[in-house]
Amino acid sequence: MSRLLLNCDMGESFGSWTMGLDAQVMPFVDCANIACGFHAGDPGIMRKTVALAVASNVGIGAHPAYQDLAGFGRRSMACSAEEIRDLLHYQIGALDGICRTQGTRVAYVKPHGALYNDMMADPLKLRAVLEAVSSYGRDLPLMLMATADNSAAQALGDEYGVTLWFEAFADRGYDAAGHLLSRRLPGAVHHDPALIVDQALRLARGEPLIAVDGSELRLHAHTLCVHGDNESSVAAVQQIREALDSLVNS
Amino acid sequence: MSRLLLNCDMGESFGSWTMGLDAQVMPFVDCANIACGFHAGDPGIMRKTVALAVASNVGIGAHPAYQDLAGFGRRSMACSAEEIRDLLHYQIGALDGICRTQGTRVAYVKPHGALYNDMMADPLKLRAVLEAVSSYGRDLPLMLMATADNSAAQALGDEYGVTLWFEAFADRGYDAAGHLLSRRLPGAVHHDPALIVDQALRLARGEPLIAVDGSELRLHAHTLCVHGDNESSVAAVQQIREALDSLVNS
Amino acid sequence: MSRLLLNCDMGESFGSWTMGLDAQVMPFVDCANIACGFHAGDPGIMRKTVALAVASNVGIGAHPAYQDLAGFGRRSMACSAEEIRDLLHYQIGALDGICRTQGTRVAYVKPHGALYNDMMADPLKLRAVLEAVSSYGRDLPLMLMATADNSAAQALGDEYGVTLWFEAFADRGYDAAGHLLSRRLPGAVHHDPALIVDQALRLARGEPLIAVDGSELRLHAHTLCVHGDNESSVAAVQQIREALDSLVNS
Amino acid sequence: MSRLLLNCDMGESFGSWTMGLDAQVMPFVDCANIACGFHAGDPGIMRKTVALAVASNVGIGAHPAYQDLAGFGRRSMACSAEEIRDLLHYQIGALDGICRTQGTRVAYVKPHGALYNDMMADPLKLRAVLEAVSSYGRDLPLMLMATADNSAAQALGDEYGVTLWFEAFADRGYDAAGHLLSRRLPGAVHHDPALIVDQALRLARGEPLIAVDGSELRLHAHTLCVHGDNESSVAAVQQIREALDSLVNS
Repeated sequence: MSRLLLNCDMGESFGSWTMGLDAQVMPFVDCANIACGFHAGDPGIMRKTVALAVASNVGIGAHPAYQDLAGFGRRSMACSAEEIRDLLHYQIGALDGICRTQGTRVAYVKPHGALYNDMMADPLKLRAVLEAVSSYGRDLPLMLMATADNSAAQALGDEYGVTLWFEAFADRGYDAAGHLLSRRLPGAVHHDPALIVDQALRLARGEPLIAVDGSELRLHAHTLCVHGDNESSVAAVQQIREALDSLVNS
Repeated sequence: MSRLLLNCDMGESFGSWTMGLDAQVMPFVDCANIACGFHAGDPGIMRKTVALAVASNVGIGAHPAYQDLAGFGRRSMACSAEEIRDLLHYQIGALDGICRTQGTRVAYVKPHGALYNDMMADPLKLRAVLEAVSSYGRDLPLMLMATADNSAAQALGDEYGVTLWFEAFADRGYDAAGHLLSRRLPGAVHHDPALIVDQALRLARGEPLIAVDGSELRLHAHTLCVHGDNESSVAAVQQIREALDSLVNS
Repeated sequence: MSRLLLNCDMGESFGSWTMGLDAQVMPFVDCANIACGFHAGDPGIMRKTVALAVASNVGIGAHPAYQDLAGFGRRSMACSAEEIRDLLHYQIGALDGICRTQGTRVAYVKPHGALYNDMMADPLKLRAVLEAVSSYGRDLPLMLMATADNSAAQALGDEYGVTLWFEAFADRGYDAAGHLLSRRLPGAVHHDPALIVDQALRLARGEPLIAVDGSELRLHAHTLCVHGDNESSVAAVQQIREALDSLVNS
Repeated sequence: MSRLLLNCDMGESFGSWTMGLDAQVMPFVDCANIACGFHAGDPGIMRKTVALAVASNVGIGAHPAYQDLAGFGRRSMACSAEEIRDLLHYQIGALDGICRTQGTRVAYVKPHGALYNDMMADPLKLRAVLEAVSSYGRDLPLMLMATADNSAAQALGDEYGVTLWFEAFADRGYDAAGHLLSRRLPGAVHHDPALIVDQALRLARGEPLIAVDGSELRLHAHTLCVHGDNESSVAAVQQIREALDSLVNS
């Protein structure tokens, strides 16, 4: 059984504005998705976040986004495939430049917010992202959403020669097709720590989850997306970390 | 006698706005200083400009600036040494990322506009730039202004282990200390093509220029800064190119 | 017969980048749609463009857009109705502030680019725009696209108490429903000055156009959108102006 | 004795980032200096902050800044007088537009951060600000720093016909000339609530403060600048409010 990695969005402060408890959550994760300046992050924030990741021996992912600071990259923008490729190369390169000054490099790519959602919803956008990651030329894996059937995405990843890291969520409810429940629906977000840890362990063991309709849902996930927004989410990450470590050590 | 390189600011369009005759001037220069998105250039413009440079086998320099699109990077900003370092790393990295997708890399750094002027006027700012170029870790040379006495700058370059490429101008008048005459003064800008070519040839041959006070001025320059703003400046670049080539071939 | 007004996008330069022949085209138009800083225009450009309009006694319209300088406001963004209202109020207010320093005021509103297209395609977006224009509180008319049947838009305008100014194009082909032909189709853009002037005169006289399928198309338009991008479009505007003036004076 | 007004910077959140306890501090102040989008604030934040001010019957001031989101408007920029005038008109107008949708108007202007400091340090910049406030045309007062001798500033205000509102600080130490002590010096910032309230009362009563050198310092101030950054500063504002109210009522 391969180890289930924990990934977390980081470096989402900007200028004088602070967001996220990066320093607190960093020791418990494996992968830091670091904002690259288009939805959050500025060169100084990026440098500090890379330093935090290096200090905790955490892998660094580029977390590129549509250029929309005011909307935090959460508003879909009608960008062409070419525009998506260019903004990915720019942002990955910028973070890679900051990484190299600290003796490390970008290790993978995870698009942010609306760009992530658009990539999951539109195969042409997924192709644009895959083409961009591939042509960056450093064999970077792409992190994307696991669903009940990853085969279509996997076929595209294979076509572009890009390794895919599928991610799942321990604190979110799923429908039978393995899509996250809309936040407007009951059961969309788990708040009970025991439930969250249980879902993490099921994913780590390769056991099925229970979808909202009661059916069994098998998600093949390489990594779990966790959150460092506030004290309670950091506490949840710590509990997940300890549970996963027990699993590996048992 | 080493060859005098021609460098030119490029990629200073932005979005739907066009600036400069990059495609026309590219074949005549050796080094393209490419804007990195903070004063001009966007990811798509950067990609196209890199492609132009690659097609003409022209060396690519990062042309980073203060973050001031509305002011075109020409307004000095009170940035700390740390802020200067971070914005350099970000911009160099972004361009380097775009370069690698086209099989090339950033080959040197030339700060733009107010950042360039501040670096020449304030040794603390020059140190910040040198530290940033050095810590980027790819042994990139820094392009800066030649004056009658380059020794202080050279000493700082040596201290940081950064190769310096001093640049001069063929179309500008100088004072006796080797500083460009203010554009408000008569003789600041040469318009006579014969005079411009003559000044270029003197610089290439290592012969002295005549400063505004009539004194001889020796500038030790590795490169000549030329302009591709309009048809007449492109014609001047072509004439300089031909004159320098004759010199080398003679 | 009421006079057919000519409106033209203006003030679409930004910082050091120039776009449009505003000074040349201003004397021939009635209404200047002035960019408000989100897709083009900066405070200095806005001031200069307002001054040009005042000097030619041209009415000033706010030309607000999604916040997307790099995309020139041409990329649709998934903004909420509330976000659209807020960005309209901000931009109209900013231009109105600059107008009042020159003894004039914003006289109408015409959304730009993707915001304009979204408003025409989605009644919820049109409602958001109408609500914003209405709540600005200065009884500003809204400029929008005329089609074969303006009744649905007119009903919404009436609901919000906003005067609608429908605009048509003299240099574009239409389908039978009064929608502009896609630029990918033949006949989408007229280049023959005689044809352009003829279409302008038909619109001014209230005569039908001939749609792409040969059918008669009646567009009830208050204003004609013209362009000042280049010398030939300015020449076309001048010809349209003269033709319309002859009509009024005959 | 005229009442000493309390003014506080507000609306300095941006997009998804929160700053300041605006809702908590609003009920205790008289004047809200609202960010206008160039250093902080976006159209939605501005609307919400204006609504808060209206609900507490608090006067609204435009708080314009250099265009520098990443630097929070704290980095001086070499803007010309014309650029300063234009950016003031744009920002005042934008906030005024949002105000009018809520039945109120901008009531005064207080420049932010580096623009404020530059205005206090350079009479040419103060002239640019005064000219801008005057030419906006709504007889808005300008808020600026009180010193031991306000006469030079007052003479300039009179020249431009702009009412000046001088502000002082209850929580900062002063030198004998009435300048704030640098934050690097001991005594620059008061943390003892009793000391802060005492300094506020002295200012309200027109009594001298004790400068850092022990001398008496008389500041003629119309308003006191208070802070809503955190719980303790809000508590201090509440104490000052109560002390000033007792004074007025006694």
